[in-house]
Amino acid sequence: MAQKKHRSSILERRKEVLESLSGLGGKIYDQLDTGNFPSVTMPSRSTENIYYDPQVRQFILGDRKVKRSARNIRHVKPFTQLTWAALFSNELTSQRKTSTLRDVYYSAQAYEMTFKDQQESNNIVTDLETVLGFSREDFSIFPEERSAIFGDLTIEYTVPGYEGRTMNLTSHPDGVMIGPALTSAEFVKTTADKVIAIEKGGLFTRFVEESVHRRFNALLVLTAGQAPRATRHFIRRLNAELNLPVYIFTDGDPWGMHIAMVIISGSANAAHLRELNTPDAKWSGVWATDIVNYKLPTDPLDEVDMKRLYELQKDPRYKEDPLWQREIKTFMKIRKKAEQEAFSRYGLTYIVDEYLPAKLEETK
Amino acid sequence: MAQKKHRSSILERRKEVLESLSGLGGKIYDQLDTGNFPSVTMPSRSTENIYYDPQVRQFILGDRKVKRSARNIRHVKPFTQLTWAALFSNELTSQRKTSTLRDVYYSAQAYEMTFKDQQESNNIVTDLETVLGFSREDFSIFPEERSAIFGDLTIEYTVPGYEGRTMNLTSHPDGVMIGPALTSAEFVKTTADKVIAIEKGGLFTRFVEESVHRRFNALLVLTAGQAPRATRHFIRRLNAELNLPVYIFTDGDPWGMHIAMVIISGSANAAHLRELNTPDAKWSGVWATDIVNYKLPTDPLDEVDMKRLYELQKDPRYKEDPLWQREIKTFMKIRKKAEQEAFSRYGLTYIVDEYLPAKLEETK
Repeated sequence: MAQKKHRSSILERRKEVLESLSGLGGKIYDQLDTGNFPSVTMPSRSTENIYYDPQVRQFILGDRKVKRSARNIRHVKPFTQLTWAALFSNELTSQRKTSTLRDVYYSAQAYEMTFKDQQESNNIVTDLETVLGFSREDFSIFPEERSAIFGDLTIEYTVPGYEGRTMNLTSHPDGVMIGPALTSAEFVKTTADKVIAIEKGGLFTRFVEESVHRRFNALLVLTAGQAPRATRHFIRRLNAELNLPVYIFTDGDPWGMHIAMVIISGSANAAHLRELNTPDAKWSGVWATDIVNYKLPTDPLDEVDMKRLYELQKDPRYKEDPLWQREIKTFMKIRKKAEQEAFSRYGLTYIVDEYLPAKLEETK
Repeated sequence: MAQKKHRSSILERRKEVLESLSGLGGKIYDQLDTGNFPSVTMPSRSTENIYYDPQVRQFILGDRKVKRSARNIRHVKPFTQLTWAALFSNELTSQRKTSTLRDVYYSAQAYEMTFKDQQESNNIVTDLETVLGFSREDFSIFPEERSAIFGDLTIEYTVPGYEGRTMNLTSHPDGVMIGPALTSAEFVKTTADKVIAIEKGGLFTRFVEESVHRRFNALLVLTAGQAPRATRHFIRRLNAELNLPVYIFTDGDPWGMHIAMVIISGSANAAHLRELNTPDAKWSGVWATDIVNYKLPTDPLDEVDMKRLYELQKDPRYKEDPLWQREIKTFMKIRKKAEQEAFSRYGLTYIVDEYLPAKLEETK
């Protein structure tokens, strides 16, 4: 899979996705025409073939390949399923419809294509991602999860019925949902000079109410827990296309820390893909050291939290920047965690008036 | 608690909320002025005092009362906490800020008011609801959960900075989030003649893409699983203020059935409140009988599902309409469940082209 360069045009990207699908189909026809059993080759996604690459600052796949060939009786079924997934993705993408992984599983039955279970059908979609180097969202297969954005960014829709229509993302003060329509929109203009990603809905609302977008010239992104892939890709686009630095605010615990890490360095599950992470994004808090410095109300770290910290300590992504190891050690030492809302013990707006500017400065 | 009549004006309601808070404060001052220990009396929320009322078609509280008096040493703490919660709600509501239950818990510390844990602080907020007969959303305390709406309804914001601004809810094709700003908006105009509430995000997106809002003159509401209270109140407003019938589509299993039921008849937890349910809303599917009639792909009902069915069978809310008992019995007989997405086995648009119109007609 070749790494793709950033492209400003959504339409150009869609064309490319469709071309890659036709390319796959063409190759299969060519093999058949020349009297060969059709086959596809792709990088192996087995654990032994996943490496952390400090250059691109994410997990990547190594050189091992797997081949699916219609010649091999054991491959006939997954090969056919893969071909069907490509056909279905092509239909979705060219008809401008979106779907979910669950829908893909059931839709197969309409084509008398059967999957043993949801897991089998999910794996085939991941195979298709691996073969073509695009992510399932590019093939119009979206997750159910939703997150939101708020701030002065004008976008232009490309979805059917809305082509050319623009919207400013301050239009709805509850936040604008990051779904298929928004992720396929072009960026038109912004006055923002940074992106602030926030884990919790309550804090996102607080930031909107306190006009953080205006006071700090920021686009506010609600990740709503672990950011969905579509949102991670969207954050990357804000960073790459608009040159906006990204600051991430999460709860002060191993899980919040990892929400930030996955936005920054991606996940091992997506080692076959690029363009889902934002390597230069910063985790701005709540750090373990913030818990100490700001004397926040805390809960004790339980066994599961501690176990997670030991795992993260050994994770190559956490060895990139000494910040991570320092914070892991501090968590282990204080054995305490704190939520973002804990700042309310100093009043509802303390987090916006005092903590936020201090941390934006500190992690600049 | 007196039952409140529908009011069209959000601003009027806010005024009423603030008056009820001042009223509570005034009563306490009066008691102090006349040399009495201050006290409040409210209906008991204990299980023995919760009854199903077929008249209002929801659970209500009976005649038992509890009294919190500053004279009783064991009541001093909860009485003080309740008074603080009223003070804090008054600040939030008059300053037009919103908060979450979590934030209330931490904010108490800014006032040197302590709660043992989150549960204790949640209970006090419920006490305040019970005393004054408004729900916590009226006191500007919102849940984190988010759901969405899409369709031809023009609303007018009342939140600070947006007063008088209107928005049409077809503006963003990913759906418009139902948060504090939308739930406090006035309804200006609509061409819709019904509301369709949908459990799953994937299906909501499908409905938007297939222009269900135009083809069926409908406002589409995504409940995103169990509808948050703010969304249930919002659905009620659509029904009451705009006279729109409400049709609910969920997964075909006991959990989906109950998502519909809670929108229709509310929950026992909210027996102290009105205005959260929509008694005339219809559960339109996926019924157990639909699973049979449409030959849907299914999963077996497991033990937890079966146990839930036995519970629901005895629930007074499920004795209102013979439909519920029939469907419970059918589920028990076929021992199968099906998701909304299962209709994709007949093609992605079958659910919109065939199933939806048939069920809207059947449950009219």
